Amino acid sequence: MNSNKHKSENTSSPSSLKVQGGIEQPSSLNPHAVKRYRGMRSALLDVDEYLNGIRNKDITILSKAITLVESSLPAHQTIARELIQACLPFAGNSIRIGITGVPGAGKSTFIEAFGLHLLDKGRRLAVLAIDPSSSRSKGSILGDKTRMEELSSRTDAYIRPSPSAGSLGGVARKTRETIILCEAAGYDTVFVETVGVGQSETAVHSMVDFFLLLMISGAGDELQGIKRGIMEMADAIAVNKADGDNKTKAEFAQRQIKNALHLFPPTESGWIPEVKTCSALTHDGIAEVWEMTERYFNFVKQKSYFSHKRQQQTWQIMLEFIDARLHERFYNKTAIKQALTNYKAKLQNGQISPYQAGTELLEIFDKL
Amino acid sequence: MNSNKHKSENTSSPSSLKVQGGIEQPSSLNPHAVKRYRGMRSALLDVDEYLNGIRNKDITILSKAITLVESSLPAHQTIARELIQACLPFAGNSIRIGITGVPGAGKSTFIEAFGLHLLDKGRRLAVLAIDPSSSRSKGSILGDKTRMEELSSRTDAYIRPSPSAGSLGGVARKTRETIILCEAAGYDTVFVETVGVGQSETAVHSMVDFFLLLMISGAGDELQGIKRGIMEMADAIAVNKADGDNKTKAEFAQRQIKNALHLFPPTESGWIPEVKTCSALTHDGIAEVWEMTERYFNFVKQKSYFSHKRQQQTWQIMLEFIDARLHERFYNKTAIKQALTNYKAKLQNGQISPYQAGTELLEIFDKL
Repeated sequence: MNSNKHKSENTSSPSSLKVQGGIEQPSSLNPHAVKRYRGMRSALLDVDEYLNGIRNKDITILSKAITLVESSLPAHQTIARELIQACLPFAGNSIRIGITGVPGAGKSTFIEAFGLHLLDKGRRLAVLAIDPSSSRSKGSILGDKTRMEELSSRTDAYIRPSPSAGSLGGVARKTRETIILCEAAGYDTVFVETVGVGQSETAVHSMVDFFLLLMISGAGDELQGIKRGIMEMADAIAVNKADGDNKTKAEFAQRQIKNALHLFPPTESGWIPEVKTCSALTHDGIAEVWEMTERYFNFVKQKSYFSHKRQQQTWQIMLEFIDARLHERFYNKTAIKQALTNYKAKLQNGQISPYQAGTELLEIFDKL
Repeated sequence: MNSNKHKSENTSSPSSLKVQGGIEQPSSLNPHAVKRYRGMRSALLDVDEYLNGIRNKDITILSKAITLVESSLPAHQTIARELIQACLPFAGNSIRIGITGVPGAGKSTFIEAFGLHLLDKGRRLAVLAIDPSSSRSKGSILGDKTRMEELSSRTDAYIRPSPSAGSLGGVARKTRETIILCEAAGYDTVFVETVGVGQSETAVHSMVDFFLLLMISGAGDELQGIKRGIMEMADAIAVNKADGDNKTKAEFAQRQIKNALHLFPPTESGWIPEVKTCSALTHDGIAEVWEMTERYFNFVKQKSYFSHKRQQQTWQIMLEFIDARLHERFYNKTAIKQALTNYKAKLQNGQISPYQAGTELLEIFDKL
């Protein structure tokens, strides 16, 4: 592979692909970005070039490959599909950690502190984000960059903001495929960050091995933003900002959450979720959160639950992917779209049972 | 309508349809039962006869209609579909209450005590059960009957055990349609009972207005049977068996659960789940559980959330019904079944991505 060739390509690549201090600007699916993609068509590499670049830990190539996976252009999708297939034999060897928490829980500073601790332990870290609901503003991404300043300057860490738009299913797929690319590039730890207020936690839960919920003390308004059900998905909870005047309050919150978790039955793996306090500011407790994480992975690997869960996840993704395509094909039919308005009114007036409505819509579909 | 005709039909109907003290024996979908159904073919009424019988609160006809809805014979399904359609204008006027709790929480005795209290308030009550996972033994049904002895002897209450077999989707549909029949028969309150250990709570949650979780003190092993996520679905929790020596423990459990619920965000309706203690044995607290239930219904009806939720449920059921049919059609194809074994192995070995596997399976399907 000719590295000069890549260099020149990088220089000529559109601004959205420029690597800045280890933080990749997100690719977007908006028309403006698609226009920019067109300009780079000639700059597309072939699958082997992407693969070799990724295997050689070339960050520029990795970033281009992720942009390809995120692209909705058919030509890009074809290469992306082949590339994923080529990367698969080198993927799967990382630990995948989901991190969620409401805005204000200090997610970015926690990820900075936690991530730096892992780098000190000799790990290589990729930080991805999934956030399909909001079109994250540029300001917020720059905010992340500031908060993860040290992490983003490290060569053994790679930070990639979420694709800026798309359906949850689409963004989830892109993130799952990005994990594969990062693993093939030798990252042995992957963080998938989510904001904790939407549907995306379930998606993240289905792509990680370990799910960490970040909370803060107060147990009042701060928690109102967390969606119902998220606490029960957590393998661990860390009460962040346990520093200064806030330390006692954080420890009180820790006890409260522990008591609450007692009311929950054990997780499928048999692991009993733990609750820790930490401070991303002073780094107090960060080592303990990592020790707990390691304990979790030892526990599930001993019980073969680790590989069992991954196989379950893969199988589930395939089933959901097929179901989603069948669903799309059905509802994309013009005749179905037209009939649906009518049936919606009938259902709301209680004129028809949902089963009868469904049966009649399927009959319309079959006649197409 | 000729009531004599119905009487003679009832006498000649198979034993599974005999009404015993207000408790209906469940119809089953096993071959033995289907054989029995065949024998009653000539005894089928027409839709108007069923409708009139139901509207006239004829328990025997109602029971026959439910058996029809539960039947898997195409001839029965055709009439059942028409009957549901005919009953719809008279349905929807009840309050639908889901009741769940682990075995040992005293569900049957609670339903007896709670139900009798509602009858005293002048309500008419139908008690249905949903339990698709287990094939409930005859012994357990007789057990229920014994525990609900007084309720089952009342003419203003109707108790119908769950269909004894079938998929969750199938059983859920039958229960939803049974609710429609019961409402058309003038029952203004419907309990849907579930055992609290399986998937069925989500199904029940999607067909009721108010979801009550029954717990007992101890907060230890007794709760281990409750599935994750159920506590967050509850609109109210009642700690049962708060009597004698157990009263203090129950009140302690109440406080614990209240604290735990503080950590949960509010429900979609804005209703804050309440925690009560009660004793189905002494009837202490039963009136308070009912007062709370009434308060809930006032709250959601004021906010129009009541009808909003029902419309949402109906829409959701139709979407899920269509998705389930599309799914079935896909996986019932022999070519897909054959290919699936192969793809499962490839997925487990990490040879293919779930998206690629799904894409290829869809291609096989399209060529059929």
